[in-house]
Amino acid sequence: MESRTASGKTAKASDLNARIIFIKPVAMQKLSMEELNRKSVEEFKRSEKTPVIAVLENIRSAYNVGSVFRTADAFLLEAIYITGYTALPGHKEIKKTALGAEESVEWKHFTNAAAAIESLKADGYKVYAVEQVVGSLMLQKVEFTSEEKIAVILGNEVTGVEQDTIALCDGCIEIPQLGMKHSLNIATAAGVVLWEIIRTRINN
Amino acid sequence: MESRTASGKTAKASDLNARIIFIKPVAMQKLSMEELNRKSVEEFKRSEKTPVIAVLENIRSAYNVGSVFRTADAFLLEAIYITGYTALPGHKEIKKTALGAEESVEWKHFTNAAAAIESLKADGYKVYAVEQVVGSLMLQKVEFTSEEKIAVILGNEVTGVEQDTIALCDGCIEIPQLGMKHSLNIATAAGVVLWEIIRTRINN
Repeated sequence: MESRTASGKTAKASDLNARIIFIKPVAMQKLSMEELNRKSVEEFKRSEKTPVIAVLENIRSAYNVGSVFRTADAFLLEAIYITGYTALPGHKEIKKTALGAEESVEWKHFTNAAAAIESLKADGYKVYAVEQVVGSLMLQKVEFTSEEKIAVILGNEVTGVEQDTIALCDGCIEIPQLGMKHSLNIATAAGVVLWEIIRTRINN
Repeated sequence: MESRTASGKTAKASDLNARIIFIKPVAMQKLSMEELNRKSVEEFKRSEKTPVIAVLENIRSAYNVGSVFRTADAFLLEAIYITGYTALPGHKEIKKTALGAEESVEWKHFTNAAAAIESLKADGYKVYAVEQVVGSLMLQKVEFTSEEKIAVILGNEVTGVEQDTIALCDGCIEIPQLGMKHSLNIATAAGVVLWEIIRTRINN
C-alpha cells in the first residue's frame, strides 16, 4: 500500500519515517487566535494575578518598557512599578512594543525606586535587584517558592540598578553571563528572571 | 557598645538586624568592569561553546536580531543561523542593540529555514520551533539534558514560524502565556527559551 505524503513523496505504509513526515503537519498545526483563547482586557483585570511585580528604575528606552509590559501580561504579573525618569504608558514608543499590554497590566508611578521599595515592603514583598554585585544570588540557584510575593528591580540600560537602591533590597539576583558582553538587553533580562520566578508557580 | 548604621540609626552590637543593615551596602557592592571578568573577542572565539544554535526566520526588526546576538554571547551559544530576509550583521540597527556581540558570536546565513534545518540535522542537532501549535511542549515540561545539541527556531514578529518550517522540526516549544496578548517580543522569547536550555547545563 502506498500513499502520498505532505511533501509529495511516495510513501509505503510500512515506512515509518515517511509516515511520521505525513502526520507531522497535522499534529503541529499552528493555533488560530481563537484557539489561543487569550483573555480580554476585562477578563485580564478580573483574573487572579501572580504576586510578582517588576520595578523599572530609570529605563532610558520606552521600547524596553513596552516589551516588559508585554512580558508582564504574558506572565500575569500583579503590576509594574515605574520609577525615576522611566517613560509612562501613553508614550508612543511604549504603545509600539507593548501592543496593548499597557491597557491590561496594572502600573503605578513612584518618584524613585526607594519609594517603590518602601511600598513593596509594606505590602510584604521580598525585593531583589537584578544586578551583578558582591554576593549576588545566581538565578539558577535561587529557590523561589510558589507563594512568595516577589519584586524584581531592573535598572538603567547603561548604569544598572543604583547602588543606593541595591542597599535597600533583600538581595541581588544575577543572570550568569559567560560571554564577552557585560549585560543582556533589559527587556530580555526581565523576561529571563520573570520566567524563572513563574516556572515554579506553573509547575505547581 | 553602640555604632551608627548606614541609615543613620543607632545600633547595638547585640542587635542582629541593625548589624545586617550596616553590612549590606558593602556586601552588595556592584562589580566593576574588571571584576566582571568578561572574555575578549579572541577569548570568546577560542572558548568551548554550548552546542545550542538559535535560528532566526524572517525577523523583521534588526533591533531584535541584535538583542538575540547579545543573548547568544551571554549564554555562549555555538552560533546564530540567519535565514530568509532577516537582517545580517553589518546592519546599523543590529550594531545598536548587539553592542559588539555580532563580532564574537558565530553566524551563518541560509536562504531559508529548510536549508538551515537540513544542515543542523546533518550535524546531529534536535530542532525545535518556538511556536504555539497542536501538541507543542510546554517550556517548563521539556526535560533538556546537558549534552544534547539543540537548535531553536524563532519566527517572524507577526506571523511566527512558517507552517512548512514547523513540519521539518522535531517538535515545538511553547512558552506558557497567561495574559491577553498572543506572543512575547521575539528577543524576550529567545532569552526565555535559551535560558531554560542553558540553566540545566550551568547546574551540572
